[in-house]
Amino acid sequence: METDISINGFKAAFGACGLKKNNALDIALIYSEKDAVSAAVFTTSKVKAAPVLLSMENIRDGKARAIIVNAGNANACTGDQGMNNARETIRMVADNLGVSPDDILVASTGVIGAQIDIEKIEKAIPELVKNLNPEGIDGVAKAIMTTDSFPKIRTFSGKVNDTSYNITGIAKGAGMIMPDMATMLCFILTDINISSSLLKKALSHAVANSFNKITVDGDTSTNDTVFIMANGTAGNDEPDERAYEGFLAGLQGIMYDLATMIVKDGEGATKVVHVYVKGASTPPDAYAAARTVANSSLVKTAFYGQDPNWGRIMGALGRAGIEMKENKVDILINDVKIVQSGLGLGSKNEKTAADIMQNPEFSLTIELNIGEYDDWITTCDLTHKYVSINADYRT
Amino acid sequence: METDISINGFKAAFGACGLKKNNALDIALIYSEKDAVSAAVFTTSKVKAAPVLLSMENIRDGKARAIIVNAGNANACTGDQGMNNARETIRMVADNLGVSPDDILVASTGVIGAQIDIEKIEKAIPELVKNLNPEGIDGVAKAIMTTDSFPKIRTFSGKVNDTSYNITGIAKGAGMIMPDMATMLCFILTDINISSSLLKKALSHAVANSFNKITVDGDTSTNDTVFIMANGTAGNDEPDERAYEGFLAGLQGIMYDLATMIVKDGEGATKVVHVYVKGASTPPDAYAAARTVANSSLVKTAFYGQDPNWGRIMGALGRAGIEMKENKVDILINDVKIVQSGLGLGSKNEKTAADIMQNPEFSLTIELNIGEYDDWITTCDLTHKYVSINADYRT
Repeated sequence: METDISINGFKAAFGACGLKKNNALDIALIYSEKDAVSAAVFTTSKVKAAPVLLSMENIRDGKARAIIVNAGNANACTGDQGMNNARETIRMVADNLGVSPDDILVASTGVIGAQIDIEKIEKAIPELVKNLNPEGIDGVAKAIMTTDSFPKIRTFSGKVNDTSYNITGIAKGAGMIMPDMATMLCFILTDINISSSLLKKALSHAVANSFNKITVDGDTSTNDTVFIMANGTAGNDEPDERAYEGFLAGLQGIMYDLATMIVKDGEGATKVVHVYVKGASTPPDAYAAARTVANSSLVKTAFYGQDPNWGRIMGALGRAGIEMKENKVDILINDVKIVQSGLGLGSKNEKTAADIMQNPEFSLTIELNIGEYDDWITTCDLTHKYVSINADYRT
Repeated sequence: METDISINGFKAAFGACGLKKNNALDIALIYSEKDAVSAAVFTTSKVKAAPVLLSMENIRDGKARAIIVNAGNANACTGDQGMNNARETIRMVADNLGVSPDDILVASTGVIGAQIDIEKIEKAIPELVKNLNPEGIDGVAKAIMTTDSFPKIRTFSGKVNDTSYNITGIAKGAGMIMPDMATMLCFILTDINISSSLLKKALSHAVANSFNKITVDGDTSTNDTVFIMANGTAGNDEPDERAYEGFLAGLQGIMYDLATMIVKDGEGATKVVHVYVKGASTPPDAYAAARTVANSSLVKTAFYGQDPNWGRIMGALGRAGIEMKENKVDILINDVKIVQSGLGLGSKNEKTAADIMQNPEFSLTIELNIGEYDDWITTCDLTHKYVSINADYRT
């Protein structure tokens, strides 16, 4: 499948500066030829990496010109020296591009707690600036990979009245976190002309229905970052409500796909499972039920074992801190009901459900039947390979 | 090590009634010759098994005569029929012993969601009553095992003034939960003469510092139960404050040891790790920090890999929802500091810490250094064998 992922007015470049071993790609630059209306969402962790703290400052005015990103070192838990290194990176990019340092966003992913070798970055930046070109985006998607097994890219084209615009999104992440090396990063570029307030609103809505609805191992990174830059090159009219809805749908579609790709690429994962909770008495209850089931090690090992082990699901619901009545609960694997009113429907249904669970992707639906609120989370299974990757990674 | 685990005035019996395969022990009865002051603590899960619901009723008057327990079937998620089966079990035990059904406690552990074969229990009860004898307690410890690899028994002897009393505790559990088969059960028998209010107070205090401080996989069972029966046969005076403290210390010691044995016997576990959090700004923060680190899959796989991967510990602290300052955090493995003021102390310290982590038991201490509250949780590592046990168990 060939897709044109270049976006008018954006250029990109990537390279290998030696932060990763074996001359692997590990640094990239994205540049907008003019000021881009920009927004961001960052990790909620209390332990925020230096690049997160600096980007939070630089995004405050709602505009940016460039994103500098490296893999191989997260620049997290690195103290004052880490902050100085991130500031120096920003300064060098700004100088080489001839723009203000306030307009540079920065992101890092990789090992935690080690100081970044700033000389390697210093050497790479002039090369990156020299190599900026409109076709560089898919190389950026490769350069930001860590334990990812494939690059993650999605595109969308829409219209405001009769004017076309494009959105391209790239992401990396193979665990919601491996605080020593991973992180979820997502960069979205679009040529739509849109106000800062609408862009922020759309990003916040789309993140809530994509990256905030996936889990691999229940952890949250020190470096998680989503950037969106809209350079207005499409020249469309300011979107009305209908055009905004179209843009939001496109953005959300891209981010949902990227989020699902991250779960599919989850460390050691062999199954993607969409956990739907229906009929909760409050929205937080619906979310808590989905999250508790989706993160339960016992439920996730049962997914791996292709076992419709609903006792573990009931167990997770029981400790989720939600309002529930055991004898109201129905549970389905895809459309096959295995529990009705809290009681198992027997081995024939469970056999059919077990057959469905042989597939790499299926849904688990929990109907609490005591209210009107629904929510969902996409998760993966817990496998021998997850243990291998994470027990063996650093040593 | 030979310990006399019989307690004056208590008898016990055990047998194989066919709930487990291969004629394995699966049913047991504990009987007090006279009314015993009794107390209990049950699972906080909203999904409570039938025996839990009935025992909650029967313990309300603070006295009991017998505990009937089975393994192989948890009688959880079994609806009205499950409640009827548990009631019928109680009635049969009461009839055969010639005591009131209100004085019978019942506990079950095993597969969730399957109806118990009440005929098997019906046949076993007269045999159990006939076989009751003062030496039966250690057989009970064996009969309640499920995935446990060894029986768990501890004893304590104390004095009130010059009168000696004894406590014997038995427990089972090899995961904090496997809702389809496990559960933590603990039965404590003592001949001390003690009031109902003091006994309840001691039990609640001892549980808070033992079973509520261990985690294997972060789950909570539908069937978790702790029973304590004190029959007063020792004939001691009502304990004064000093004697009460002695009793509490003995009870807590037994329960701490039993809890640690459960973690050691954790599914697939190769390491027991005591996670201490010091200097939190509130007690809930201290507990949340310990719990989040102790349950993090990434931290637990690092224990397995014998890797002092402090980035994962910082990552877990960052998402624990606690007040913290990254640059105040110190981290130690036993007495070896690997992080000071949020920064790594380098590979020499990490190498020493990695050597300590080769042991089957060690401590992880996190000093938040922003307040005066401490807490701790004992956990185990996450291993390939955990995944094997739980992916392969039911199918």
